[in-house]
Amino acid sequence: MHDVAVIGIGQTKVDEHWDKSLRELSGDAALAAMADAQVGMVDSIYVGNMMSSVSNQQVHLGAMVADWIGQRFIEAVKIESACSSGASAFRSAYLAVASGEIDTALVVGIEKMTDSPSDEITAALATAADADWEVDNGLSFVGLNALLMKRYMYEYGWEGIDFAGFSINAHENAVQNPFARFRKAINEDQFINSPMICEPINLMDASPIGDGAAAVVLTRADSLSPNNAKVLVVGSASATDTISIHNRKTPTWLMAAEKTADAAYAQAGVSPDDIGVFEYHDAFTIMATLSLEACGFASPGKGPVLAKEGEIKIGGRIPVATRGGLKARGHPVGATGVYQIVEVIQQLRGDAGETQVPRHTFGMTQSIGGSGSNIVTNIFKRER
Amino acid sequence: MHDVAVIGIGQTKVDEHWDKSLRELSGDAALAAMADAQVGMVDSIYVGNMMSSVSNQQVHLGAMVADWIGQRFIEAVKIESACSSGASAFRSAYLAVASGEIDTALVVGIEKMTDSPSDEITAALATAADADWEVDNGLSFVGLNALLMKRYMYEYGWEGIDFAGFSINAHENAVQNPFARFRKAINEDQFINSPMICEPINLMDASPIGDGAAAVVLTRADSLSPNNAKVLVVGSASATDTISIHNRKTPTWLMAAEKTADAAYAQAGVSPDDIGVFEYHDAFTIMATLSLEACGFASPGKGPVLAKEGEIKIGGRIPVATRGGLKARGHPVGATGVYQIVEVIQQLRGDAGETQVPRHTFGMTQSIGGSGSNIVTNIFKRER
Repeated sequence: MHDVAVIGIGQTKVDEHWDKSLRELSGDAALAAMADAQVGMVDSIYVGNMMSSVSNQQVHLGAMVADWIGQRFIEAVKIESACSSGASAFRSAYLAVASGEIDTALVVGIEKMTDSPSDEITAALATAADADWEVDNGLSFVGLNALLMKRYMYEYGWEGIDFAGFSINAHENAVQNPFARFRKAINEDQFINSPMICEPINLMDASPIGDGAAAVVLTRADSLSPNNAKVLVVGSASATDTISIHNRKTPTWLMAAEKTADAAYAQAGVSPDDIGVFEYHDAFTIMATLSLEACGFASPGKGPVLAKEGEIKIGGRIPVATRGGLKARGHPVGATGVYQIVEVIQQLRGDAGETQVPRHTFGMTQSIGGSGSNIVTNIFKRER
Repeated sequence: MHDVAVIGIGQTKVDEHWDKSLRELSGDAALAAMADAQVGMVDSIYVGNMMSSVSNQQVHLGAMVADWIGQRFIEAVKIESACSSGASAFRSAYLAVASGEIDTALVVGIEKMTDSPSDEITAALATAADADWEVDNGLSFVGLNALLMKRYMYEYGWEGIDFAGFSINAHENAVQNPFARFRKAINEDQFINSPMICEPINLMDASPIGDGAAAVVLTRADSLSPNNAKVLVVGSASATDTISIHNRKTPTWLMAAEKTADAAYAQAGVSPDDIGVFEYHDAFTIMATLSLEACGFASPGKGPVLAKEGEIKIGGRIPVATRGGLKARGHPVGATGVYQIVEVIQQLRGDAGETQVPRHTFGMTQSIGGSGSNIVTNIFKRER
């Protein structure tokens, strides 16, 4: 295995991009990442996307992106693992470069969701759950998360307001991120008074959809000058869990998050204490909580304490959603995993402006597909 | 890069499997391949599929398959490149094993198409073409191939009947394959009198859809006993071309087929003359022709000669579609690329029964996504 470095990042604002087609949005992020990496050609493209066949009547996004950005004849595929598709695309690219077969790889996460009626998008999101045993029984994706949250609150005695800190932190950080969809701070009153979507999940517990694309360029670290600062991938792991929540022994524990975080820590030779920034998958506040616990940042049932005590803020023990997170940067599902990586690289480079974290040697990303049924965790390290 | 061996194969019959769910069909092929490989656990799963979000309201097939076959917590993703999705899944698995990161990988190609109304499937197949510049102008996928075929006939002076040999050969071979959808021989009269679908493509020029799953298990060759017979992946390449046909300089030449075949030949250290069996992508007879030419088995415009002179039959110069091909084994799109690999392995093992090819040291597969916009070519070698 060769060491792999991230040498370029690019992103579009998460928004309603009605004036941009799927290829244009992908291309904007891809070309920005290639310009940042100062490369004119790449050897392979890995596109992360979940629902373009439904929302854009287009599959085959590998070929579409390669063609659109002028990378003719190179290898290109799409990778899908529901809401963690972007992270899985990154992982495929990482393995291809690490193998030595591919020198330079481009990863593009893309999702364009706001052209479709919201009932179609709700149905498309539910395809991430189990069609036979969850969706056929009437569950939507937010419904599944509501069941999880209710169970968690029952087991550990928390109330809805105890999750407010996750969303308040995300919105506060998004104000400083020009690529975020909702650059507005919210307070506890706004959180608790927001409309209920599916009890106990209210509008401020849930991340918004959106159109967006993010991209990174990877290359073999040994091809770079040893004297230059660089960001290396020092830990990478991916794991599945049962696709239906009801098949899990402990539904309120994200086993695949624990397993991938432990594997990534071991590969990187670090512990949770070494992580200076964590871009987690706060699709719902319950997922934020469960992710922090499974990764060892809080003990079981204690995730909300981190939010209540401000430990997740910039300068706190484990800063999360530092560019807005899924909650306020927005969650264009197949793109999100790549946005998280772009944002951690910004932090490790020291380019995160007003939301720069102080300790920035190690950064971690975690992306969750389905209700915890696929999880990808990566650790990045800034060298010099 | 480590050498990679294929140690297990499995498949279901291509059929209308109305009594089997998506997970059951996938599991049948996967478990058969694992039994054949004599492994109880794998480290990673790569699922090839194109349209389950539309035809089965289910994405996230990596997690679904891992869960269903009891491979809990392992890494699993779906790979998509339109009609070559199965081959792209194989290629991802190959790279992951070659890198040394993954020891043993399972590849599953799955497509379940016959539960949906045919207009929905026609629309889903068209998502492999360019949504903005082809489909929006009224072209279906067969329509695109009809334009290509018409142009080819005009340029080189062929007539419809000249393509009959491709389909007759495929059907003849399918009679001997218990996993083929149409195990019926056809003759030239039946070919030429079959109903026109989209001129000049008639029913017998076109492959049928179907439900089916195929699977292979890959592992590092250095983990196997040096004394045992094995099948190695000795060449593997993937390339894209423009997603729209109109953007190609020479629409009747599959540039990505030529590039990937040349790369695979070079890696394997062979020429077309060394290939004893070629499972090609005969979705339409025009694609059969173009694939043979681009891979160096016929000169430009001369593909039909191979069919007319019987050179593509078992015992001929380059046997193709030896288990029925897409035309008669059937074309469950995302699964097809894996079926082709299963069939070549059967040949290299000497297990192809009545359709066994005589020269079986080297076998080749080629899978085509879209109208030639993604092509994956692999060469396999039997050792000892």
